[in-house]
Amino acid sequence: MSVTYEVYRGSPEGKIVGDKVTSTLGNNQVFVETLVSGLCGTDEHFVKTNQVLGHEGVGIVKAIGPSVTTVKVGDRVGFGYTHSICGHCDNCTTGWDQYCRTVELYGSADFDNGTFSSGAVWDANSVYTIPEGYDSAYAAPLVCAGATVFSVLTKFGIQSTDRVGILGIGGLGHLAIKLASALGYHVVALSSSEAKRQEAMEYGASEYHVFRSGQAPKDMAPIKHLLLTGSANVDYSSLIPIMDTLSTIYPLTVSADPSNIVTLSLVTKGIRIQGSMVGSRPVIRSLLDFSAKKNIYPTIMKFPLTAEGIETAMKTLREGKMRYRGVLVKE
Amino acid sequence: MSVTYEVYRGSPEGKIVGDKVTSTLGNNQVFVETLVSGLCGTDEHFVKTNQVLGHEGVGIVKAIGPSVTTVKVGDRVGFGYTHSICGHCDNCTTGWDQYCRTVELYGSADFDNGTFSSGAVWDANSVYTIPEGYDSAYAAPLVCAGATVFSVLTKFGIQSTDRVGILGIGGLGHLAIKLASALGYHVVALSSSEAKRQEAMEYGASEYHVFRSGQAPKDMAPIKHLLLTGSANVDYSSLIPIMDTLSTIYPLTVSADPSNIVTLSLVTKGIRIQGSMVGSRPVIRSLLDFSAKKNIYPTIMKFPLTAEGIETAMKTLREGKMRYRGVLVKE
Repeated sequence: MSVTYEVYRGSPEGKIVGDKVTSTLGNNQVFVETLVSGLCGTDEHFVKTNQVLGHEGVGIVKAIGPSVTTVKVGDRVGFGYTHSICGHCDNCTTGWDQYCRTVELYGSADFDNGTFSSGAVWDANSVYTIPEGYDSAYAAPLVCAGATVFSVLTKFGIQSTDRVGILGIGGLGHLAIKLASALGYHVVALSSSEAKRQEAMEYGASEYHVFRSGQAPKDMAPIKHLLLTGSANVDYSSLIPIMDTLSTIYPLTVSADPSNIVTLSLVTKGIRIQGSMVGSRPVIRSLLDFSAKKNIYPTIMKFPLTAEGIETAMKTLREGKMRYRGVLVKE
Repeated sequence: MSVTYEVYRGSPEGKIVGDKVTSTLGNNQVFVETLVSGLCGTDEHFVKTNQVLGHEGVGIVKAIGPSVTTVKVGDRVGFGYTHSICGHCDNCTTGWDQYCRTVELYGSADFDNGTFSSGAVWDANSVYTIPEGYDSAYAAPLVCAGATVFSVLTKFGIQSTDRVGILGIGGLGHLAIKLASALGYHVVALSSSEAKRQEAMEYGASEYHVFRSGQAPKDMAPIKHLLLTGSANVDYSSLIPIMDTLSTIYPLTVSADPSNIVTLSLVTKGIRIQGSMVGSRPVIRSLLDFSAKKNIYPTIMKFPLTAEGIETAMKTLREGKMRYRGVLVKE
């Protein structure tokens, strides 16, 4: 079966360019009509390539290919980062399918499909049913931003009695505060200025501290788990003094620059740096369920799902003015 | 009760200087007559201070202070890194007393006591009974080098089915190979040349690969847990390609220089960097018991426990000629 749909690609000049794609539905593939797409900082990294952008989508299944049994036409599903996964490697079978060994991720797997689009062909194993009544515009940011922080908050042994720090209050950070608070953790919000204090406390933080490199907050008890969600590079030597013994730092935002981590400082306090990427299917399903039951919603700004709308949203994000996640909505 | 004993200190010129110390045995303290002391690379870091050096000791308890109930005069004990621990903080009570929150470690706790000495006053809670029949000269390196690798090998969830890499075959590395092999792991030895192949295989390695920065070994399956035991700084970008998904790197040697860790590379493979320092009391006791039962012995070179002997041993270590742990023996 053949489907044709509009997509938005990056370009060497960094402009968003519309295009049309025609694909045939392969085995276990579905065609999803895109309703909304979140905007992620990672899209910026690919804006000068010609791939289709976007990986935080929610849409309606409009057609199914051969062998599809897990979803049906009319289902409302999330889709995004992982495009297809093998389902049988060690990572797929132990709850860590985002590290599937046999397939590639968004950004390299399939340049012709993304969520900045009117639709996409997707592997049926990599779509997630959205709970009834949970608004699509809120659901979209959960597929990447939400999954990224929820995976850390639920898969690495954090306990309700632990002090959990969130450094950086943006797309990931504001969701991390809401989710960590709902999970029962003691949430310590860390931001470079006083500007977001009120919102952070409303989102569920128990403490708010101004943190800048080289200026450790005074009288702050040590942090057991620290999520780095800001977009800027972090001065690790500034972090060590605020960390507890046997604590963990999770660098969640993407930087290809070398850090300045002094491994000796990790040794003397037993600190770990834990890499973690997005979330597995079970984590995303669990997040959607948890968010719906606990009435947790990202704080979003809406833009039209058009070339111009995408560019305006990306500019807003680039200028640090997004509060807190941009969502592109089909007009 | 007052005791007087000889000690060897560092000096601003880096010469080893003999001295005499007189101390009074405080509450729960013992006087240990030093029989042997291992030499650790860390001693080099303090050789230009005037503190008493050495933290891998075995000796005989010669006197006990008030309230001592756990050892008696005549006991043969190991003593070394941790000098005194509180016994009641969260780390002490959960098997991680090397991170005790209320006392300082060797190097800052007590400049007048160390294992480069004829004796030392030590907290009775920080000495370890040596199994009968296990030679003191072999036991000494277990107190620091052995504990450092055994803690990693037993406390961070490594499974017998995992591929465990040991990068660097020296004081720590050769012991790591012997212990990891005895624990049932598949041991992958990595060294900068072919020179140590035969010994590494004799010590229990299942594979031996030449590894240099920028030159990943060909046809080597990925590593799940990698212990960095070499003395040189490591180029982390060279390590990432040899690591498995969801794997762990343990930087065990002490470097105060910034590393070049790119956190993005940790994110995409779910890699962690785990800091770990020496070992707790339960780990050291377990190591002594395990080594005695399994007939595991460090490979040592002996030197006299004199100022000249210490300097010769340190020179041997500095020149990369130690095979594999230097032990200073009372004459």
